[in-house]
Amino acid sequence: MTTRMFSEIGEQPQALRATLDALLPRVGEVEEVAKQTRQTLFIARGTSDNAAVYGRYLAEVHAGRLSTLASPSIATTYRRKLDLDGVLAVALSQSGRTEEIVETLAWAKDCGARTVAITNGGENSPLAQAADLALCTLAGEEKAVPATKTYTTQLAALAVLGLGMGADVDVADLVRVPEAVEALLADPGDVDGVAEGLAGVPGAVVSGRGMAFSTALELALKLKEACYLHAMGLSYADLLHGPIAVVDADTPAILVAAGDGPTLPGTVALAQRVTGAGAAAYGVGGGQDLAAACTLSLKGPDLPEWVAPLGLIVPGQLLTEALARRLGINPDAPRGLNKVTQTD
Amino acid sequence: MTTRMFSEIGEQPQALRATLDALLPRVGEVEEVAKQTRQTLFIARGTSDNAAVYGRYLAEVHAGRLSTLASPSIATTYRRKLDLDGVLAVALSQSGRTEEIVETLAWAKDCGARTVAITNGGENSPLAQAADLALCTLAGEEKAVPATKTYTTQLAALAVLGLGMGADVDVADLVRVPEAVEALLADPGDVDGVAEGLAGVPGAVVSGRGMAFSTALELALKLKEACYLHAMGLSYADLLHGPIAVVDADTPAILVAAGDGPTLPGTVALAQRVTGAGAAAYGVGGGQDLAAACTLSLKGPDLPEWVAPLGLIVPGQLLTEALARRLGINPDAPRGLNKVTQTD
Repeated sequence: MTTRMFSEIGEQPQALRATLDALLPRVGEVEEVAKQTRQTLFIARGTSDNAAVYGRYLAEVHAGRLSTLASPSIATTYRRKLDLDGVLAVALSQSGRTEEIVETLAWAKDCGARTVAITNGGENSPLAQAADLALCTLAGEEKAVPATKTYTTQLAALAVLGLGMGADVDVADLVRVPEAVEALLADPGDVDGVAEGLAGVPGAVVSGRGMAFSTALELALKLKEACYLHAMGLSYADLLHGPIAVVDADTPAILVAAGDGPTLPGTVALAQRVTGAGAAAYGVGGGQDLAAACTLSLKGPDLPEWVAPLGLIVPGQLLTEALARRLGINPDAPRGLNKVTQTD
Repeated sequence: MTTRMFSEIGEQPQALRATLDALLPRVGEVEEVAKQTRQTLFIARGTSDNAAVYGRYLAEVHAGRLSTLASPSIATTYRRKLDLDGVLAVALSQSGRTEEIVETLAWAKDCGARTVAITNGGENSPLAQAADLALCTLAGEEKAVPATKTYTTQLAALAVLGLGMGADVDVADLVRVPEAVEALLADPGDVDGVAEGLAGVPGAVVSGRGMAFSTALELALKLKEACYLHAMGLSYADLLHGPIAVVDADTPAILVAAGDGPTLPGTVALAQRVTGAGAAAYGVGGGQDLAAACTLSLKGPDLPEWVAPLGLIVPGQLLTEALARRLGINPDAPRGLNKVTQTD
């Protein structure tokens, strides 16, 4: 039986194409809002928060803007005003209906921020209505609980946001993304082999750095929610500051990297350290260098580092889906979760 | 045999007293530096990063300043300049010798930030030398690899920083901290009972919110580094957005809260949800309400929410030390770790 999650993973090239077709013509509107600000504040939870981590690195590395991940409790629990003059607040929610996120965006506006919403919930969703500018993704309806196409289209919207913030990147790379994801899906490599390596382990570490850190966090979240695996998503520097102690022969590491960029050598070195400690290292992306240092690996998209995260999660999604089925879990409906999470 | 970690946990009242005696008279110096800024950027890794999370909430909730946890890779790997005009950069490193942190603080100064160092490495450490103002903690030498007294004294320095940033709090609460920690150490409760509940579990979730989030992250890190336990530190809202799926009858949750404050009701509700799912919930702090909702709990310090984290980690340190011994691990020297971690 084909799961909905598997089908939705396969719909990503089309979802990305539709989203980019709709949003790329709107870069000028983003510029208008962004030019009144010099910093960025991202407001999100769960998968959307992992997308925000991509937005944060993109804004800092490529647009030179100090960027912050908001703590929504400041707005919703402590009800404390901050001075957000000069700040562009960007809220992400696939449904556009998570009250905590809508409330925090309204708070940010009230604190003096300019506001952008990124949502798959449409122009009429509460989140889109609350923002100065709404960038709506066109992922279509997503039925499986683990977000896939709503996540990658959020990344596409964030890439458009980056262009509007003046990022020093080439828009042609972004236009190539749907095709690169299609190529990955057509030839995903030994997904079942990696799933076999992860079946029965007590936990795993998922690590990446810089632009790829978002992918590591998102893959760890997917493995937690759909496979009930104790997967820790960590930057490789944070991993060395303590949690490396949990890596033993029973605890594999999954290492994620783009095929180029300044964080690749450190990721390769970490793979060597992990296998040197007798543990398995599974690579996702990172080209020949990472593959050579890993026990087994899945190739990443043929995309430069700044847009690589839009494709780099795809082998991880396929891995999650395959591992869930192998463990006897229906990935479309994991325990304890609903499609729209309400937190206060 | 008494471990060094156990001895150092017991030295905290004295270390806190010495640090506060040295730093409280310097609030005016902090004011001088802080008044030239309106935002805060924390630079840290590992345990120091967990302290920074406390600093961040303190700055936002009580001083109304937008605060950010820095991504050091922006400085050290991507070598990208950000506009840090109006930003107070605060770097934390117990040794004061972690190159990544020293380099990132120097970068922040170069980007226009005013700079503060918080370190146990003394005025002559590279980190203290690189900063406009150094707040040196007086924890004394720490020999066990898992940081205890260097962590709580960092929190004390951050509380002093908060006072200098004009936080709406009462300094008398801070002065009472050493005494409150002394009282906790004299009557720590059933630490062995909780350690027994955690021995043999495949992993655990450690959760807290707002001011207590830092404590949850730090306890999770301690359990990872000294007990090799797959402990996930999460805010309770983030837990509900996905990772709640890993909580089953075999995965206990450790829930941390101050005895008062607006995040306590949500923490109690989470304890009820966890036990309702058939899992064990262990409370740390949170007063009678949290204790009543948990399987077993350890009391927290008799301190108001804003300074509670300075004592709330203490039962968690005792738990870590007891669990490590029960598992046959020497907590003073866990595998894979050195006292000073160098990352680039």
